Amino acid sequence: MVLDALQKAEILVEALPYIKQFYGKRVVVKYGGAAMKDCDLKEKVMQDIVLMKYVGMHPIVVHGGGPEINNLLARLNIESQFVNGLRVTDKETMEVVEMVLGGKVNKEIVAGIASKGGSAIGLSGKDGSLIKAKALNINGVTSFTGEVVSINPRLIETVIENGYIPVIAPIGMDDEGQSYNINADLVAAAVAVALNADKLVLLTDVPGLLLDAKDSDSLISILKVSEVEEFIENGVIAGGMVPKIACCVESVTGGVGRTHIIDGRVAHSILLEIFTNQGIGTMVVNE
Amino acid sequence: MVLDALQKAEILVEALPYIKQFYGKRVVVKYGGAAMKDCDLKEKVMQDIVLMKYVGMHPIVVHGGGPEINNLLARLNIESQFVNGLRVTDKETMEVVEMVLGGKVNKEIVAGIASKGGSAIGLSGKDGSLIKAKALNINGVTSFTGEVVSINPRLIETVIENGYIPVIAPIGMDDEGQSYNINADLVAAAVAVALNADKLVLLTDVPGLLLDAKDSDSLISILKVSEVEEFIENGVIAGGMVPKIACCVESVTGGVGRTHIIDGRVAHSILLEIFTNQGIGTMVVNE
Amino acid sequence: MVLDALQKAEILVEALPYIKQFYGKRVVVKYGGAAMKDCDLKEKVMQDIVLMKYVGMHPIVVHGGGPEINNLLARLNIESQFVNGLRVTDKETMEVVEMVLGGKVNKEIVAGIASKGGSAIGLSGKDGSLIKAKALNINGVTSFTGEVVSINPRLIETVIENGYIPVIAPIGMDDEGQSYNINADLVAAAVAVALNADKLVLLTDVPGLLLDAKDSDSLISILKVSEVEEFIENGVIAGGMVPKIACCVESVTGGVGRTHIIDGRVAHSILLEIFTNQGIGTMVVNE
Amino acid sequence: MVLDALQKAEILVEALPYIKQFYGKRVVVKYGGAAMKDCDLKEKVMQDIVLMKYVGMHPIVVHGGGPEINNLLARLNIESQFVNGLRVTDKETMEVVEMVLGGKVNKEIVAGIASKGGSAIGLSGKDGSLIKAKALNINGVTSFTGEVVSINPRLIETVIENGYIPVIAPIGMDDEGQSYNINADLVAAAVAVALNADKLVLLTDVPGLLLDAKDSDSLISILKVSEVEEFIENGVIAGGMVPKIACCVESVTGGVGRTHIIDGRVAHSILLEIFTNQGIGTMVVNE
Amino acid sequence: MVLDALQKAEILVEALPYIKQFYGKRVVVKYGGAAMKDCDLKEKVMQDIVLMKYVGMHPIVVHGGGPEINNLLARLNIESQFVNGLRVTDKETMEVVEMVLGGKVNKEIVAGIASKGGSAIGLSGKDGSLIKAKALNINGVTSFTGEVVSINPRLIETVIENGYIPVIAPIGMDDEGQSYNINADLVAAAVAVALNADKLVLLTDVPGLLLDAKDSDSLISILKVSEVEEFIENGVIAGGMVPKIACCVESVTGGVGRTHIIDGRVAHSILLEIFTNQGIGTMVVNE
Amino acid sequence: MVLDALQKAEILVEALPYIKQFYGKRVVVKYGGAAMKDCDLKEKVMQDIVLMKYVGMHPIVVHGGGPEINNLLARLNIESQFVNGLRVTDKETMEVVEMVLGGKVNKEIVAGIASKGGSAIGLSGKDGSLIKAKALNINGVTSFTGEVVSINPRLIETVIENGYIPVIAPIGMDDEGQSYNINADLVAAAVAVALNADKLVLLTDVPGLLLDAKDSDSLISILKVSEVEEFIENGVIAGGMVPKIACCVESVTGGVGRTHIIDGRVAHSILLEIFTNQGIGTMVVNE
Repeated sequence: MVLDALQKAEILVEALPYIKQFYGKRVVVKYGGAAMKDCDLKEKVMQDIVLMKYVGMHPIVVHGGGPEINNLLARLNIESQFVNGLRVTDKETMEVVEMVLGGKVNKEIVAGIASKGGSAIGLSGKDGSLIKAKALNINGVTSFTGEVVSINPRLIETVIENGYIPVIAPIGMDDEGQSYNINADLVAAAVAVALNADKLVLLTDVPGLLLDAKDSDSLISILKVSEVEEFIENGVIAGGMVPKIACCVESVTGGVGRTHIIDGRVAHSILLEIFTNQGIGTMVVNE
Repeated sequence: MVLDALQKAEILVEALPYIKQFYGKRVVVKYGGAAMKDCDLKEKVMQDIVLMKYVGMHPIVVHGGGPEINNLLARLNIESQFVNGLRVTDKETMEVVEMVLGGKVNKEIVAGIASKGGSAIGLSGKDGSLIKAKALNINGVTSFTGEVVSINPRLIETVIENGYIPVIAPIGMDDEGQSYNINADLVAAAVAVALNADKLVLLTDVPGLLLDAKDSDSLISILKVSEVEEFIENGVIAGGMVPKIACCVESVTGGVGRTHIIDGRVAHSILLEIFTNQGIGTMVVNE
Repeated sequence: MVLDALQKAEILVEALPYIKQFYGKRVVVKYGGAAMKDCDLKEKVMQDIVLMKYVGMHPIVVHGGGPEINNLLARLNIESQFVNGLRVTDKETMEVVEMVLGGKVNKEIVAGIASKGGSAIGLSGKDGSLIKAKALNINGVTSFTGEVVSINPRLIETVIENGYIPVIAPIGMDDEGQSYNINADLVAAAVAVALNADKLVLLTDVPGLLLDAKDSDSLISILKVSEVEEFIENGVIAGGMVPKIACCVESVTGGVGRTHIIDGRVAHSILLEIFTNQGIGTMVVNE
Repeated sequence: MVLDALQKAEILVEALPYIKQFYGKRVVVKYGGAAMKDCDLKEKVMQDIVLMKYVGMHPIVVHGGGPEINNLLARLNIESQFVNGLRVTDKETMEVVEMVLGGKVNKEIVAGIASKGGSAIGLSGKDGSLIKAKALNINGVTSFTGEVVSINPRLIETVIENGYIPVIAPIGMDDEGQSYNINADLVAAAVAVALNADKLVLLTDVPGLLLDAKDSDSLISILKVSEVEEFIENGVIAGGMVPKIACCVESVTGGVGRTHIIDGRVAHSILLEIFTNQGIGTMVVNE
Repeated sequence: MVLDALQKAEILVEALPYIKQFYGKRVVVKYGGAAMKDCDLKEKVMQDIVLMKYVGMHPIVVHGGGPEINNLLARLNIESQFVNGLRVTDKETMEVVEMVLGGKVNKEIVAGIASKGGSAIGLSGKDGSLIKAKALNINGVTSFTGEVVSINPRLIETVIENGYIPVIAPIGMDDEGQSYNINADLVAAAVAVALNADKLVLLTDVPGLLLDAKDSDSLISILKVSEVEEFIENGVIAGGMVPKIACCVESVTGGVGRTHIIDGRVAHSILLEIFTNQGIGTMVVNE
Repeated sequence: MVLDALQKAEILVEALPYIKQFYGKRVVVKYGGAAMKDCDLKEKVMQDIVLMKYVGMHPIVVHGGGPEINNLLARLNIESQFVNGLRVTDKETMEVVEMVLGGKVNKEIVAGIASKGGSAIGLSGKDGSLIKAKALNINGVTSFTGEVVSINPRLIETVIENGYIPVIAPIGMDDEGQSYNINADLVAAAVAVALNADKLVLLTDVPGLLLDAKDSDSLISILKVSEVEEFIENGVIAGGMVPKIACCVESVTGGVGRTHIIDGRVAHSILLEIFTNQGIGTMVVNE
């Protein structure tokens, strides 16, 4: 379908109410999954983020990078142990995690944003002591898999106020300077709460929370915090959805305006969420 | 034609390079003619201007208002004399001009911008001694038809820096406090020069400069300053186009980046000019 | 009487305690009545306001313009209906009100201030959505006679901080962009409250509140809010004084330091009020 | 003569053009002589300076204090030697000079300004290394009588910008921390040049430069720099006038707008100079 | 003992935790006693204060000057009366106090700081109306011996923020401009409270509070406010220690972090207090 | 050797002139070699850098990381080719370089600075498009070994002004987002020039430039730019010294105040260079 210039202009104007609504707002985007692997999707996410910045929003990107980590671990013949879907990180693995997340994935996103006309600063939780962390106790086992103790929002705010887009690798540090590998969803939620963000968007590889996991038409568009417990009990929230929903609940109860689980496999899913009335995916609300 | 959300998102992303290109740029828009009379066009111009502000440009509106002035003059049985297309303004007429431009047209534009989500400040050249003027000598006759002596850009810059859109009525004042009615095109050009604007856009009721006035396909897309004299001699530039082209020449030789004469009868013509590669109308360049 | 330079210097020095007392203070002046009609008085008011600005005060002018409105209405053969001294404003009248107040009276004051060396910005309540208004219900009749819903003080403060004197026409706007004609005293009071002003001065055509309307020596210099009800009952406060006193009460109970009803027919009445111990007119105090 | 309030208001308004003219201007006042000894004159000088500050000027006071120094020297039985009207300052004398100028005279002026409602900061040339000095060679004799090497204007500007009136004792310091007694006229001229002041006013005990020293009606109102040499040769400029005129010449050739020698014995002589058309005393101009 | 460069570097690095701890902190130093008389000690105090400023602290100096005052009083044959260790100051004495403290001692300290590379501003309580004072009633006798009514911290903060070290002479002023001689310890305590300082250090001529005044090994390192009363009763706190401890108590109960009485006869005692773990002297704590 | 507190205080005071001299100065430190491998030396460098920041300097760290890169390349069985001491970087190697420099070494330095009480931000040349690079042509071969095209100093200045220490990995990016591995000495020199730094310090594994490479007593303390050519010809400057000296020459001729090649194997060599008169290593001067 070919659109002429006028039709395009009208579509820009249609976006005006949304642009106005989100002007000056802080939106934390957890970037990962398919949207990070597929080149075309990757490019579209970069466009979405740069566009958000140019129309006056303040996007903050928190990224994962599991597949790239696994790839290097494999090449180095290092084997990982997982408990409850969280990597039990030994010293050697932690080094790989930091190199891949901080040196490769983080900087690729920074370069991707630059290629679309934005200007980003890549940060790990060590920079400016941004993410204070401690070891996570997983079934009595501690390793360099960590959890967030606190987020120092000042550095992120400085980056934003100077016109840059912060891109954050989910690596924390304790008072002794020890690094920890933290789940990116958890970091995104903690950053959103610390920044008092207006929106948290988790890019996932599912359409959202489905009432029937096998039926993609059974999307639950709005999930109330008060309903979560029941949905966990009856198995609607299960598997990888459990920690994601937990992040959303933590955010909205921590003061973040709205939290969304959206389908990163859909092109421009971030813009769709922001610029359309119906939105997409599942929105978790504090009710 | 129905577009789905994704197509709309893609169109937003298509606009990104233009948004980036004009980010922080000052664009003076001379608003008048059909685009001021037709309700639907009027609304679209307001949308265009608000959109420009939200995506980071700094639009400055200079407006005319001839028909509304004529209307009130008629109701009051005041007759005007015109010389070379410029009104010879007597005292009684000047009073009407100020009331219509400053009290009615200017504030309607301010309200129109507010209705689309922008915030504007209406100014006449008296406010903050913005436009210093003197009587224009028309064939030896002087009246309260004036010309610009100087523009004080500080007030306009203050308005812009505080997030408002300046809307300027083309009324000047001399040192004795006497008001003058000035052609809005001339004011727009002088404002653009004083602000060192990046772009001046004149909304007109023609498609641009036509090689053959009867053939709308004969549009001259780019007009070099060096060609103007010849086109005047051979009659291509004639009638109402003479002063308009003169304004454009004054602007681009005064340091304004680019100057455009566009067709205000086309919906969203301002956005079309800015957001499409081909542009529309006639661009005057300093060559 | 001829004064030599030394005597003049001493008088300047006498003013010093008052200058000190009002340094940095915000003074809202409702300008109207005789002081607006008489050329000589008009010039003196302009001088007073510019002097206030130069010696460190922040004057804010709110003006009326009834006679000029009536004049144009008459010329256009439009008849107005009044209820309780408030104009019932139909659509045609509203247009005239806006043109006269916003285009003529407002800009004349701006020019007058400029002619005395000050720098003013004329604003209507539409500019920057300064005055949010709604229709006033007068005995069950609504028209475009409005009342203040809220004042946005940010624009006024921006104007003040940038060294300009704000001059405000009493026109409000609702969310749909509809204009309303509002009594200037009411706007002055609302502006004074919104700005947390130190003083509100209403220029009137009477010496102040008189105990006996026929005896100009019976001036009530200080009126306590607690006395108002009784004075209304016994008819001391009557006619046009009722709404004026109501404005004063609204101001002082809303946090404005002091409110004065003074005689605009007296030359330099504003300076007299500020720079003399005895003051002039009636001061309403929150007791 | 009794003036009513209105007459006073009119005189304030008469001052408006002068207030406007000097708004934001820097005026260095050398304070000394009779105006420092006579209690009534002293009080009037304080009033003049505070008034200047309140109406928007930036007065900077440089003071002398010879008589007070002599008084303490006498009480301590210390004898001074003078060469060419400049004190040859030994170590013991220097200590007295510093105590009297810095501890007594300077702080009395600060207190005097406070008593009239101003806020002043007393500084010696040691504070913030304000006045860098070296020994003055007087006929081959050096002592702690010094001359200005350089003035650091930053501290004075900080004091001004924070709303205070700087009051400067004419004491300099060399790189070793040694104090020097410097002629206050010279310090005032050097400060005026360093601050790029708009005006330098020297308070003296004469009406100005007289063509005939015995005839007070022979005042030279305007003295051109080009005339100075001739007037020295023919003895019109003689005695104590020689260094004062030299200071004035240094100032105006150093960029100070205007320099005045006025009669400090006349009440409010500073205001008279500033607020009257004719001015008083002798103005030295750079022609 | 000769240290090589490396050992010196290591000592600098050892200081790092203390530098970090006091970065940006305000430390009021009461300077007097032996440390003011002995040339070598004097120089070391100047070094300590300048070093504090360069490593990021904000030292504020309050000084005494009794011996210098006595010296000039003697030379002028003026006799003073003392009550409870406080000078009963008559008019003549007050003049001497101001000249010595404000003109001599204060400026010597300013010059001393400059000689070590710092930049100081000497202030008396008159400057900027810094110290508001009133007569102290000593056994029914009032004189120009005063006590602090209030401290205006704004001027001190302005001086600090502009990079200067404030040096304050303990002279106060009442609303009539009358000067008062105030005990420097009291001024230091009041300044520390008004500035919400982190530390107050009183330089004295004793090692601190001794349990047995004759045994310098009986130092009480930490004195709780709750213990003071008992120590006064049993005579441990006696004589000149009574007012000093009272100052400390006033400070710490007024919000100052820590208060120290240290031995000014020890070289670099201020640095020792700040840069060593054990500290020196007696610390008064709010317990 | 045990030093008592007083001796330590005296050493701090000895440092004062150096602290003063370098206050507010920008010092670029190229960190690499032995000082990066040895744990004890590493810790001392971190201390030196944090101390510099706390005493008012602005250290900027540019780091290498060759051995760590080689280590990972070896583990991944990737072989590198070197030409003229510069790695010829293929795509696979470039990925390793970015992971090691950006993810591991850079963040370890950030953590090391944090452990000593400083606050650092790790940056690669991709962040904020800090280092614009292009492929280096090495004997006709191009690879992802790059050279600096330009440095954008704004981001570094933002980081400094917000109180952080910038730590820069020597990775550049071209307009297509392609990464380049650049020699850290070259990046340090380019950063020093772009920042108009006061000092560039290259940490090396030699004592400086030796006249006789085998005689460590033959140190050339000061090397003039004018002598460089001759020293290259006679072989005094040879091998790894050639590019290092070239960097120094580029810096000092580019406006950097002073450039030093010092021995990173000596503990606290940076502090020794800055805080001792004799300095250490070889200083290159622009003569």
